[in-house]
Amino acid sequence: MFEKEVYIERRETLKKQVGKGLILLLGNEVSSINFKQNTYPFRQDSSFLYFFGIDQPSLCGIIDIDKNIEIIFGDNPTIDDTVFLGKRESLESRCSCVGISSVRPFLSAEDYVRNFKGDVQFLPPYRPENAQRLSNWLDIAVHLLKNRASVALIKAIVAQRSYKSALEIEEIEKGVNLTIDMQLAAQEYAKEGLTEAQIAAKVQSVADSSGGSLSFPTILTVEGQVLHNYYKGNTLKNGDMVLCDCGAETSMHYAGDLTRTFPVGENFTLQQKEVYEIVVTAHNAAVKALKPGRLFQDIHLLACEKLVEGLKMLGLMKGDVQEAVNQGAHTMFFQCGLGHMMGLDVHDMEDLGEQYVGYTDQLKQSTQFGFKSLRLGREIEPDFVLTVEPGIYFIPQLIDMWKAENKFTDFINYKKMEEYRSFTGIRIENDFVVTKQGNRQLGKELPYHLD
Amino acid sequence: MFEKEVYIERRETLKKQVGKGLILLLGNEVSSINFKQNTYPFRQDSSFLYFFGIDQPSLCGIIDIDKNIEIIFGDNPTIDDTVFLGKRESLESRCSCVGISSVRPFLSAEDYVRNFKGDVQFLPPYRPENAQRLSNWLDIAVHLLKNRASVALIKAIVAQRSYKSALEIEEIEKGVNLTIDMQLAAQEYAKEGLTEAQIAAKVQSVADSSGGSLSFPTILTVEGQVLHNYYKGNTLKNGDMVLCDCGAETSMHYAGDLTRTFPVGENFTLQQKEVYEIVVTAHNAAVKALKPGRLFQDIHLLACEKLVEGLKMLGLMKGDVQEAVNQGAHTMFFQCGLGHMMGLDVHDMEDLGEQYVGYTDQLKQSTQFGFKSLRLGREIEPDFVLTVEPGIYFIPQLIDMWKAENKFTDFINYKKMEEYRSFTGIRIENDFVVTKQGNRQLGKELPYHLD
Repeated sequence: MFEKEVYIERRETLKKQVGKGLILLLGNEVSSINFKQNTYPFRQDSSFLYFFGIDQPSLCGIIDIDKNIEIIFGDNPTIDDTVFLGKRESLESRCSCVGISSVRPFLSAEDYVRNFKGDVQFLPPYRPENAQRLSNWLDIAVHLLKNRASVALIKAIVAQRSYKSALEIEEIEKGVNLTIDMQLAAQEYAKEGLTEAQIAAKVQSVADSSGGSLSFPTILTVEGQVLHNYYKGNTLKNGDMVLCDCGAETSMHYAGDLTRTFPVGENFTLQQKEVYEIVVTAHNAAVKALKPGRLFQDIHLLACEKLVEGLKMLGLMKGDVQEAVNQGAHTMFFQCGLGHMMGLDVHDMEDLGEQYVGYTDQLKQSTQFGFKSLRLGREIEPDFVLTVEPGIYFIPQLIDMWKAENKFTDFINYKKMEEYRSFTGIRIENDFVVTKQGNRQLGKELPYHLD
Repeated sequence: MFEKEVYIERRETLKKQVGKGLILLLGNEVSSINFKQNTYPFRQDSSFLYFFGIDQPSLCGIIDIDKNIEIIFGDNPTIDDTVFLGKRESLESRCSCVGISSVRPFLSAEDYVRNFKGDVQFLPPYRPENAQRLSNWLDIAVHLLKNRASVALIKAIVAQRSYKSALEIEEIEKGVNLTIDMQLAAQEYAKEGLTEAQIAAKVQSVADSSGGSLSFPTILTVEGQVLHNYYKGNTLKNGDMVLCDCGAETSMHYAGDLTRTFPVGENFTLQQKEVYEIVVTAHNAAVKALKPGRLFQDIHLLACEKLVEGLKMLGLMKGDVQEAVNQGAHTMFFQCGLGHMMGLDVHDMEDLGEQYVGYTDQLKQSTQFGFKSLRLGREIEPDFVLTVEPGIYFIPQLIDMWKAENKFTDFINYKKMEEYRSFTGIRIENDFVVTKQGNRQLGKELPYHLD
């Protein structure tokens, strides 16, 4: 937890920005696995953590701007809680550590909300129990909640959380360094004959050992062309490439997120090396361009051009580079976005809506295949923390589909593609903080160059 | 997955038992952590797995007994699913592996349910999204669902799932053996200066490496008196005892669940040894009594008596043993139950209701402190799989509370308790299948005796 003043100041800024009404921030509950008492590890809501800092379930924070009151609604542990879950500091004492003096029983939150004369501003829920709660308290049908969430509140929160403080950057960098240790463990441990699950377990244990956890489910696979591959049943063999995309979450819940792709044996094959070099080139070009004032969307497109240039050299693409990218032909190989914001969430603030976090009123997120997966398009600014993660992926089902549709035949050499059908995929990902002059790569050294 | 015939037969038995109406079994969805797309590892609902075997999210199974039709409602992967999550077998093909030929779009399930003339029988939901779904489809308020769940269906499912087949016992034993490997890793790795989180990470990596997972969040703590202690921030020091209560879940989702308590250094202290011996005695007495025809409740009470006898020898308790147990004085030291059913869930079928699983119409679960936590009271029968897990716990808050209340002063020697105030806790837990003659301990050897 940060110092009390950090949370007080964040709430003051929020109140000024939102101006009036009641801000309702629901904390998270524990989520059940296969019966009520068997639960997944608790994760507090990130906006709740940002403004109230208290990392325990079943809390509700209310900021009544009109009356200038801040209240935490929650209950103190019973003797059964103590027997089963251990001694816990009183809620009053926890609240006082974040500058909140008003604590009330959880059940009374509903009355407070119902009796409030004015706008009740809430965020779009992503957990069903909180959707249910908002629906009950506010008499809004569950399926309407998303549209009734407060845009003013969303924008005010994005306006704060997008700019990371020095304290936050320090914490994120801890997460990145821990993630580097996870990557090193993967590279050290991976060898022919082991399963993906065995390596992934090793990787996770590095994060867990630290007292933190994973910032997202680890992707550790010899089938890197599956972008979010959670299957881990394959056995590694020489000649395979392992794609490891993983992240640690620090005990304060700040994320790291890195990807490396490496050979199971000593070396890449020549074919692998050639494709890998293209990804490195695209990565480096993007990082060089990563400066305040540029649209991240343009940096994404720059990286796409670099990928197409390289793929042309290999004979996989042809025709005019810019035109290929304009038309989206590169999405045969690079189906996703170049990067995303990172902070308390690995895709920071994604629950608030990608349009609000990564775009602006003037700049809308695309709905086109590939481009629609770019979570960040807007102009980047100092103190943004974000990832850069280009890749090249050969997806047999996509090749077959587009080939059958004669799609992009001016730009894609389908005959040559056959040689790469079982190539799988390569991604390189690093984390950066945008500075006044350009950017700084976060974390200690974790090589990604071939030499 | 078992052979097709297993699932067909299970459904046939269920239909016969329930007799009429429509059986609605909802599969689970993926649960979000901090934004929609960042998800906890998927876990299918256990009853869905038992009758339909298909281990993927967003399915609904309907057994229309009146028309003798079995349908799976679900959708095939889109190209976006393939790009992000990989190639997946068609739903039709998965269904055919479990003997289901009728597959329909997920959205049409609601119509089927709404148009059904007769009883729609469903289970009490434990996940909020399924509660919401049932509420919408059946026009029942969420808070009323639990009471409107079908007792006939619950009883029919408990009647089947309570008796484990040879195939299931084999699978559970795999889970137990894996759990033994986890325990061995804990004992091997634990040493002064490491944190609880470091040992727990090692323990979890054994389960994850196997391609399985945890059957419940690991309890690994030097404060074993906290019964479900998930805090892992302490550093081990010589003289501490580590209580490790952990379980693997096999890739088919059958559970193991074992507890060992061991010293951080070479040996227990004399005080620790004395208490440990009492727990061993209670454990062994319970195992000896574990035979068909006996109420598990009586075996629980027998173990409690053995604990009281031992605690009397140490001067911590006094007075008549049986009377102490009758009045519940032993719950100062043993606040929970002796054991529970185990199978697809570590507390098997707990989502269906402890009363239905562990008790009978004649035998009601107690509401008394301690006794109310006994999940299994009924007569045990061959092919039940269950745990035996006595323990002794010194909980300072409970000691202070009861002492202040002058509670059980005839049986508890509060003065002597002071010497044990920081003792923490000891538990020993093993898994058993009940046989015709008695029981068989599951899994390979994992010593728990002091010598």
